[in-house]
Order: sequence, then C-alpha cells, then structure tokens
Amino acid sequence: LSSTAYGVRMLSKDLSNTKVELKVENLMIVTKKHDLSLLYLTRELVEWLMIHFPKITVYVGEDLKNSGKFGAEDICRDSKCDQRRIRYWNSKYVQDHDNFFDLVLTLGGDGTVLFVSSLFQKHVPPVLSFSLGSLGFLTNYQFEYFKDDLPAVLNSRIKTNLRMRLDCKAYRRRPPVTDPATGKKICVTELVAQHQVLNELTIDRGPSPFICMLELYGDNSLLTVAQADGVIIATPTGSTAYSLSAGGPLVYPSVNAIMVTPICPHTLSFRPILLPDSMTLKVRVSLKSRATAWAAFDGKGRLELRKGDFITIQASPYSFPTVESHPTEFIDSISRTLNWNVREQQRSFT
Amino acid sequence: LSSTAYGVRMLSKDLSNTKVELKVENLMIVTKKHDLSLLYLTRELVEWLMIHFPKITVYVGEDLKNSGKFGAEDICRDSKCDQRRIRYWNSKYVQDHDNFFDLVLTLGGDGTVLFVSSLFQKHVPPVLSFSLGSLGFLTNYQFEYFKDDLPAVLNSRIKTNLRMRLDCKAYRRRPPVTDPATGKKICVTELVAQHQVLNELTIDRGPSPFICMLELYGDNSLLTVAQADGVIIATPTGSTAYSLSAGGPLVYPSVNAIMVTPICPHTLSFRPILLPDSMTLKVRVSLKSRATAWAAFDGKGRLELRKGDFITIQASPYSFPTVESHPTEFIDSISRTLNWNVREQQRSFT
Amino acid sequence: LSSTAYGVRMLSKDLSNTKVELKVENLMIVTKKHDLSLLYLTRELVEWLMIHFPKITVYVGEDLKNSGKFGAEDICRDSKCDQRRIRYWNSKYVQDHDNFFDLVLTLGGDGTVLFVSSLFQKHVPPVLSFSLGSLGFLTNYQFEYFKDDLPAVLNSRIKTNLRMRLDCKAYRRRPPVTDPATGKKICVTELVAQHQVLNELTIDRGPSPFICMLELYGDNSLLTVAQADGVIIATPTGSTAYSLSAGGPLVYPSVNAIMVTPICPHTLSFRPILLPDSMTLKVRVSLKSRATAWAAFDGKGRLELRKGDFITIQASPYSFPTVESHPTEFIDSISRTLNWNVREQQRSFT
Amino acid sequence: LSSTAYGVRMLSKDLSNTKVELKVENLMIVTKKHDLSLLYLTRELVEWLMIHFPKITVYVGEDLKNSGKFGAEDICRDSKCDQRRIRYWNSKYVQDHDNFFDLVLTLGGDGTVLFVSSLFQKHVPPVLSFSLGSLGFLTNYQFEYFKDDLPAVLNSRIKTNLRMRLDCKAYRRRPPVTDPATGKKICVTELVAQHQVLNELTIDRGPSPFICMLELYGDNSLLTVAQADGVIIATPTGSTAYSLSAGGPLVYPSVNAIMVTPICPHTLSFRPILLPDSMTLKVRVSLKSRATAWAAFDGKGRLELRKGDFITIQASPYSFPTVESHPTEFIDSISRTLNWNVREQQRSFT
Repeated sequence: LSSTAYGVRMLSKDLSNTKVELKVENLMIVTKKHDLSLLYLTRELVEWLMIHFPKITVYVGEDLKNSGKFGAEDICRDSKCDQRRIRYWNSKYVQDHDNFFDLVLTLGGDGTVLFVSSLFQKHVPPVLSFSLGSLGFLTNYQFEYFKDDLPAVLNSRIKTNLRMRLDCKAYRRRPPVTDPATGKKICVTELVAQHQVLNELTIDRGPSPFICMLELYGDNSLLTVAQADGVIIATPTGSTAYSLSAGGPLVYPSVNAIMVTPICPHTLSFRPILLPDSMTLKVRVSLKSRATAWAAFDGKGRLELRKGDFITIQASPYSFPTVESHPTEFIDSISRTLNWNVREQQRSFT
Repeated sequence: LSSTAYGVRMLSKDLSNTKVELKVENLMIVTKKHDLSLLYLTRELVEWLMIHFPKITVYVGEDLKNSGKFGAEDICRDSKCDQRRIRYWNSKYVQDHDNFFDLVLTLGGDGTVLFVSSLFQKHVPPVLSFSLGSLGFLTNYQFEYFKDDLPAVLNSRIKTNLRMRLDCKAYRRRPPVTDPATGKKICVTELVAQHQVLNELTIDRGPSPFICMLELYGDNSLLTVAQADGVIIATPTGSTAYSLSAGGPLVYPSVNAIMVTPICPHTLSFRPILLPDSMTLKVRVSLKSRATAWAAFDGKGRLELRKGDFITIQASPYSFPTVESHPTEFIDSISRTLNWNVREQQRSFT
Repeated sequence: LSSTAYGVRMLSKDLSNTKVELKVENLMIVTKKHDLSLLYLTRELVEWLMIHFPKITVYVGEDLKNSGKFGAEDICRDSKCDQRRIRYWNSKYVQDHDNFFDLVLTLGGDGTVLFVSSLFQKHVPPVLSFSLGSLGFLTNYQFEYFKDDLPAVLNSRIKTNLRMRLDCKAYRRRPPVTDPATGKKICVTELVAQHQVLNELTIDRGPSPFICMLELYGDNSLLTVAQADGVIIATPTGSTAYSLSAGGPLVYPSVNAIMVTPICPHTLSFRPILLPDSMTLKVRVSLKSRATAWAAFDGKGRLELRKGDFITIQASPYSFPTVESHPTEFIDSISRTLNWNVREQQRSFT
Repeated sequence: LSSTAYGVRMLSKDLSNTKVELKVENLMIVTKKHDLSLLYLTRELVEWLMIHFPKITVYVGEDLKNSGKFGAEDICRDSKCDQRRIRYWNSKYVQDHDNFFDLVLTLGGDGTVLFVSSLFQKHVPPVLSFSLGSLGFLTNYQFEYFKDDLPAVLNSRIKTNLRMRLDCKAYRRRPPVTDPATGKKICVTELVAQHQVLNELTIDRGPSPFICMLELYGDNSLLTVAQADGVIIATPTGSTAYSLSAGGPLVYPSVNAIMVTPICPHTLSFRPILLPDSMTLKVRVSLKSRATAWAAFDGKGRLELRKGDFITIQASPYSFPTVESHPTEFIDSISRTLNWNVREQQRSFT
C-alpha cells in the first residue's frame, strides 16, 4: 500500500510535467470591458493572429462587434483575411459550446482571469494571460512580448498548470414538509446557486454588527463551529488572495488541498487548516447564529444565507488549466508581488 | 489531462479509504525505556497476547530480557505458552530484518512513536499506538481499552494512514579538488547523515548570537534566502508540532505537501509556504552566513552545518503507516490538544 | 529631563495605586433590558441597599417604573423605606445631570458596561460591574457575593482603574465654498457624530466588495495609507475585544497607548502598532478609495463615511473608572477568558 | 482623579515636546572598531569640530591614540588647535566619569548605538547617531550632511527622545542556609549580573533540545508559566528588533510599556502582551523545567540560568536620550526599513 501511495505521488509528478501540443482552431480573447486602451491592443493582437496563423478563427467579445475603434472589417481588409475568421462570443455562446474553444487569451489583470473562470462553469480550455503592466499571480505573460511568446505556445508542446477549482453549491432551507404516508417531517432544501471558484468562497457576516456562527463539516463530520467575522474556503491558487490577508499560508498551486482560513476569529486557537481536496466540505449557518451570513464566489455573486442554509464545497472535476510561462512562475509571482523572496539577499530589519 | 488529474485525485481518495487485513505473525512492542509502570503494563499486554493470539510471536525490547519485573518465563508458565513466542529486538535486529514485522504496538506518548520512526529507516510496518493518559496526536488508542481494540485490529480489515516522511540527506562541503586532466576545480561533498523524519527537519542557529542565512532551493531553483533564527521543513504530521509554535497552519495528514515554516524571520513578509511533496528541496548554509547552523531530525541527531554544507529533503518512499482508530481522529486530536475546535459551541472572547 | 521623565512615571504609578473613599448618595443601577431574570436580581439588590444603606438614593432604569415584577412600592413597604429613595433614570436624565451620580452598578455582561460608557459621554462615575455567570473582562464582581463585596466598597477606600476612552469626532466633507473676498476655495467639513468609546472605533468596508483605502494621520503627519478590510483604533481596554480577533496584542489597561490594528490588510508588512495616547489620530477615506467605509463606535452607531470624510481620535479627558476587585484582575480575566495563562502549568502541544 | 490622570498625560506630552539647549564642552565619539573607512570619516569629523567649535573637547576611542591613520597630531596642526582638545576614552573612563559628557556622536549602525547604551550603565548623555549608508531605527542622521546638521544641534535648542531602558538584574540561586537561631531554612540568592538594556532581554533555551519553562511574575504576582523556546522582554525601542521577528507589534518609543513576546510558544493562546512600565517583572526558570535557559542583554553578555535562577526587570531610572532629527523619524524608520508604510499608495496583493 505504501508503495502504491508512492506510485500515485510519482504519477502526480509526471502528470504535472506532461507537455501537450495545442491544436488551436478556435481561439477566444477576453479583455477587461470599457477600457479604451485595451481595444487598440486587442486589435493589434487580432491582426497579428490573422496574418500569422491562417488556420485560427478568433473570437472576441460581442461588445466589439460594432465598435469602430476595434474595426473588424479594417483588420480583415488590412490583413487580407476572410471576415469569417473574426467572430464574437458572449456568455451564452460560451455556455452552449462546451469543449469548443482550444485556447483563451486574456488581456488585463488577475480579475480578467477570474472572469474567464466564471464564464467556463464546466470544461475550461487552456488559458494564457497577458499582463499589460506588472505581472500578477495569474498573468504570467507580458503583452509587449506577445509576438515572441505566442508562436512558441501555438507551435510547440506546452505545459499547463491544472489549477483546482471548488465546486460550490448553495442550498436554502425550506419549511419542512410532512410525509403523508408516515406523518414524519422531512427537511427540504433547495439548490439556489452553483459556482466553480478559482480563488475562494467567502462566507462572512456582511453588514451585520454581530459575528456569525458557522458550522464546518468535512465528509459529514462536524469539524468545528466557527465564531468569527467569517471563513474563507480557498484553493491553492486563492492562497495569494483574500486568505493571505486573513493570515493564511502560501500554497503551491499543485498541492492537493482545500484551505479553511478564519476571518477575525473569536478564539485564539483557530489557526488556518489545510484539508485534503478529496474531502467534501459543508458550511452551514448555525440555527443559533445571531446574524445571517453572506457568501461570495471569487468575490462575486453575493448571496445571503439565513439560519440553516448551507453551502457544499468540493474539488471540481473542471480544473482551470493555465499555460505555464516558465517552471518557477509561482515563486517568481510571490517574490515579485509579496516580496516573499528576493533573489538577492533579503534585507533584514535587525 | 484535466480528467486524468481528477482521476488521480479519486485514486488518492480510494487509496486512503482502502482497508487491509493484517496477518500478524511477528509483533513488535516498543515502550519508553526506564519507566517502571510501563513494565507492568507491557507484561499485562504480552500475557494477554500469548493467551489470545497463539500464532503471534511477540518481540519486546532487549532491555526486558533479563528483567525480573517483566518476567518472560513467568508469563510463559502462567499462560502455558511456548517460551520461543517471546523474543527480543534491538536496533540492529530491526535494521537487519527489513519487512519482517507485521505490526508495531507502542506504549507511551508521541515521542515513542517518533522513536519507532527513527528505528525503521526503510519499510515501516503498521503502527498502533497506545496512550497511557490523554491521547496525543499520534497516540490514538487508550491502553485501558486494549482488550477491546486489539481483537478488532488483529481479526478484521483495518485502515492505515500512510503518513509521509521526509528523506533528509546532509552533505558536508569538502575542499575542492583539481581535475588532473582539465585543471578545473571540482566541488566535493560528502554524505554525512541520512534520516527519515516523521515530523520535521529543523535548521536553526543553535547557540549562535547571529542569525543564519539559509538558501532554500526547490528542484534546484533558488526559492528564497532566509534570514531567520531558522527554518522548519515539516510533514503534514509535523504541522501540529514545532511548526505550529513557529506560526504554521494545521495540515491534514493526507495532504501531499511539504511545509516550510520560518522561525523568527527577519522580514515581515516571510509567510509559511506549502510546497508539493513531489518537489526536492535543498537547504544550504550561505557562504555569506555569519553563523553556522544546526540541524535536528525529529528533534534528534543534532548536526552542525558549516558554510556551504547542505541538506536535501524529499518525500520518502518509506511512509509511516499508523492504524486509524476512527475516521475523525485527526480533527479530534487537534480539538482535544489545541482546543482547535470544541464540539460544543466555541467560547467567544467578545 | 531624564529624571523628570522618571518622576512622571513614578507619579503615574502612585496615581494608579491611589485609593479613594466613595461617599455614595446617588447610586445608579444599569441592567440589560428585556431580561426577566435580571428584574428579580435587581429587585433583590435594591431592597438590600434600601435596608443597609439608608443614606443612598437608588436610580433604576425608567422601564422599571411601572413594572409590577420589580415592584418599587413593595420594596419600600417591605424594607420600610421612604419611597423617594427609589428613583428612575433615562438617557436624557443622565445627560442633564453631569457629575451627579456617585457610583454605577451594572448587572449583565461586558455589553452592559459598554452601554454605561455610551450613556456617560462626559464625566463618568466609578462603575462596579456584576457578572451573573462567568466573569468577563469588564465584569469583575460576581453577583452572588454582592452582600459581601458591596459593603467593602461602600464603606472603605477603593481603587479604581481609570480606563482611557477615545474621543471620536466624525466629519463629513461638504462641497467647498468660494471665499468672496479672495476667490479661493475653502474646504468645508461638518461634525456629524461624536462618541467616547471604551473599546474601539472600527472603520471597515461594510458590505462593499471592494477594500477601502484609508489614510491614517498622527498629529497631522501621514502615517500610512491602509488598504485593508478596515482598521481598528482601540484603547488598551479594547485590546481584548475586536482588535484581538484581528491579531492585535494584549495591552494592560494602564498602558498609555492607542492601538491601530489592521483588519485583513492587503500587504504582509502591516503589523499592529501602538501609538502614544498623547497623539491625535485622524482616519480619512482616501479620495482614491473604490469603496465607502463604515464606522462603528464600540460596535454601535454605524455611520457611512464617503470619500474625503474623516474621523479624529484622541484620548478623551473623560476616562472610565472601574472599581478594581483585586490587583490581578486583568491577568485573571485574560487567563480565564482567553486561556492566556493558567496558574497551573500550561499544557504544551508537543 | 480622572482629571489628574488627564493632567499627567498632558504633562507627558509637554515633556516629550520640550526642547533643551545643549551646552557641549565634552563631546564623545563612538565608532565601530576595526573599520578602516570609519577612521577617515572620524578624522574628518574631528577636524571639522576642532575648527568650528573651539570650546569643545573631543573624546575618541583610545584605540585611535597611536593610530597614524587617524593622526591626532596632524589634525591639531592642520586645524591650529590645542592638542589637549583631542582626548581618549575607554570603558573605565566612561564609568568613572558619570555626568561628564555633554553629547555622544556615533558613526556606524544600530549596533554602535547599542554599544553606547552598554557603555553608559548609569546616566546617559544625549546621543546623536550618524548612519553611513541607509538610515536605521536608531541612526537618524546621515553622515554626509553632518556639516549642516551638527551646527543646528550644537547651537540651538533640540528635542531628545528619552528612550526607556530596562534595568535587568540576574540572580543565581544558592544553596539555602539554616538560620542558627531559628533552625529555619533561608533562601539565598546572589546578584550575578546587571545590565541596562535598550532593546531587549532575551531568555531562551539556547542549544538545549528541550523547551524551557519560565515563570513570569508582575509585581510579585505570577502572570504566566511560559513553555516556549523563550521569551523576549522588550522596550518600545526594541519593538522593531527581535520582538518583531517573534511576532510582536510595533510600539512608538514614547509609549510607557514593557512588552513580553514569546518565542515559538507551545500554546496557541500566548499572544504578546504589553505591561505598564511601572510594573516590576521577574522571570524565573521553573524548578520543573527540563532545560536551563540562557539570557542575553541586547544580544550580549550571554548567561546561563539554572533552575531557580531569575532575572528582575524594571524600567531603568537611566533612560537613553537620542537627539531627534525630525518629528516623524520613528514612522519614517519603520516605513523605510520594514515597508510598514510607503508614503505613496501601498501596493496591494489582490
């Protein structure tokens, strides 16, 4: 058994080192909306793709459809390309075309990458993210070098980081019904929301002056009853986001863990805890809680949870593959953004 | 690729839920030495095993060989058993008999379990640990109930937790030699110690008044240069030990991570970090360090590291299987010992 | 100068050890409202005071005026006392009678003591707080022993802890006006709220999904621009309340400091800081902040702060004197409530 | 009483704003030894003082007495000064001349300032500290501008920060003696060391593999029994040194507190605590401790403490006055060195 376990570990390692060849036909571009400067950069990118990759059809957001500044017709005329090679996506189109796109390019910051995650609630194509200024945790390519980087990605074998997402299902407690046959009361719950999150699910007291009381279950066993401003259920990818503010550790993206980080806990002993990603978690607003709680999914989709409502959380079958720019990109990102490490000697304060 | 990753995760889950049947012929008992009260409990345990499990040969520590208080002969006479069924182990015997023991029983505290880990530097048999007083992190059975618990373990299928150990190799830097052929200098290092640790490797400044400067590498890339009193490289099992004192998070035993926790770091941004257990780490005393450093392996085997000396750390192929008393034993242990959780409502301090 | 500083320190020490004799004529009783069990205890207390301290007039909350369960008339008849010795207070009465009450007794928890603080926005009489169950940080007397404790307090010299309060003034930014003489724009601000807080002022992002950007000034110098979920400006008394949840240290009540504790800061280097209580602080919502902020005063009086609005904070001239039950009551309270210390040996987790 | 307390607070404030005029006749210069580049800078400084401040006698370290590179004779000849105006100090001279020096200038880092503190175990003259490179916490003047800064200090009224020091007395437990009169055993202790520390007293387990058990008393009441790698008893000045590494808060130099920060405590609830500087602390190695402990005074004077030995700590009557370069020097130093604050907007990591 011990050697099987070791074999699984080696399998994981091999898997994370596997390179795959992308055969890109349908390429999607996602940018931050309402940002004029991005429009011109998008145009530059599309035109370059038209010219250099004649087999690729490019999908841009439908808000660019009639944009004179983007100028799809001009691009095609200038690059002498078939107009049908520039197409438009919207949220519904993405939803209806599972397994359709071969690659997603993003222009923007980490927020744009999170938006891509929210678009693809099922299978996610590889995502390559350009930063326009300084690199972020999720944006590991610089736009200014796209003409160097994209051919390498499109023409050869690449490595992707399969970032675990959490499948969160929110259930509302309904009035119990009576079984007409037995006369027994039956608990009734209703699924009211479902989200795949890339960073974290946050459950907090929102505007309430009272702390909330949250029951945390793992595989249906009660782990703890948290009295706190809230709890964060984070992926390794989310370890550099809100969880870090709340005191959580850094977690390498490929670690197989779900992290529970309390927000301002009301006991001194409530340390962050890392649970295996094979565990199914449940957070339930205690019936004794003085306050309702508010859930947010990657910071969006705010939802009020009343007493007895709960959310189940488990590792999603739909992970989020990001194209790896180089093997040390995670350490580089925490060094750069958090000063976690500097390659030169750390400045000591004593 | 994404679905393969999901498959590996499910495989891990299945593996951790697999029950195996122990066929115990050679059973080893390990107790804390020089503790008289333990002697009588050991005797009680051995006699009970003699009577109820006639196929089992019991090995006790050789310090009991001529102990009148233990009284091997009396046990055999009283239980009418063949005297050859009580035998004696010592450190060398264990070393020479790889894959020989089918089960280890310990009487004592977590320290006794760590001692078992140090004895078995290669393959480790399943370990079942009795606590004499309050349960610990690694001692999940109470001795007072052994007559109920042992038959269940010995006669039916059990679950073990395969606790990852770290394979630590310490290398001393020797004077470089000159290649007579090319005239080039060649670095020379010598392996001076190797330990499988269950909790942690600690590298600290020891009695030096100066902090040490430690280079941390992951898969041969420099991750950071730590200026601190030291660093702790811990397993998930070790997350409840020294790493916790130094500010590290709690980590469920089955999470596939190696944790790096700084001890009193000299920068504010050096948070604990969890790295994948497929990574090979290296900690090297910087040539610029003002102080030498001291390594300790599960708190033992203290070794001075001079400038240029280093230790490599990787997940050991020899994990440490502990017999699981019940599925929530980890959460129970942190609740009980750290007050991490109380099943009743946590007492809030506001 | 050095010896003068030492003199001031000794003066502080003497001052904190000074005992004073209370001459109580007007005694106020404050209890948690809407709690029936408290009504009977209050009645018991009042009747006992009537009988044993004939010179004292007792003021109870006006909600008891016509309460049959309290039964003021019955008390007076039973204790053969003048009915004018039981009187009634309300918020306005307290406000109009500065320096009138000689002692306040509270029955309830720490929340009731905070309520007394909010009632007395100027001079505060000594406050003696009874706990009904387990003692709190501010409730250092047990109600069950009041017949032993009160005579000691009323008949002899007592020590009070002069707990520093913070005088918080919230200013709203109004549209600038033009000076008709010079044509220059003049900033206009309006005082919109003022509170003396005993625990803390909290400024956080409330229900906003965005973090807030808060400028912190000390004596009109910019100390930092905090990007965080919020900041807590706490007294030493407040160090055991919300600040502790957010990671702040414990502070002995007589330390002359104002503590600034960030809530989930977005940089790793924003440690809590203790500033001298002779400093005037100002927290201003940055004009660049994406979110408005919400202020709360001892958890009450929630107030939205828009960009440019600010709050000034300084040590109040009106400190909050609590009657000391015994010299180690602070250490006892943190031991009891936080397990900070146990008189027996601490249980170690390794 | 409340208004007296307020008066004392205002007195403190006034005191900390008081400017004094230095009348400097005897000026002492302290530099890091064995640093050749400092020798030339010292020479430059002395020569400039000779020329511009004819009433000042300069004392340099006696290791410069016969240093050709320093060249006292050359200085006097070049500056046409009386040779008696350059004199030499050593440790004993300083000790024998209490209240003799009017100003100390240091060239070096914070370590040099700590060395000055160790030299002056009683009254300390104002200390002005030059940094040679980047400013430190205690070195607030840049040497390159000394010709601008020194005249301002020597000719006009200045402000000093009276930094509290801790008076630490170490006592060794001797065998008890029997009182011949009564036959009773009498505890005997012997004072074995006394130090005024500017940063902190550290008591830790040193090279011992076991944690130490330390009893902490405040005004002779047991506050806690710490099981930890050690404890740090720090001044506000020391809050930016070792205490910070161990997790302590930042404390403004004028706050009247003594900080107790545990090093790797073995309970989750042992938060740092700030005690009033009017309290006398005592740290005693418990008779039950498995390890001895090691004390260090500002990182020096390492001393082993055996079971029953103890150290008393109280605010020293001899504070350490540093010349203030500008009112925000503390905040500037923590911003600069810790990135605690940056005047521009903090970079957020989300």
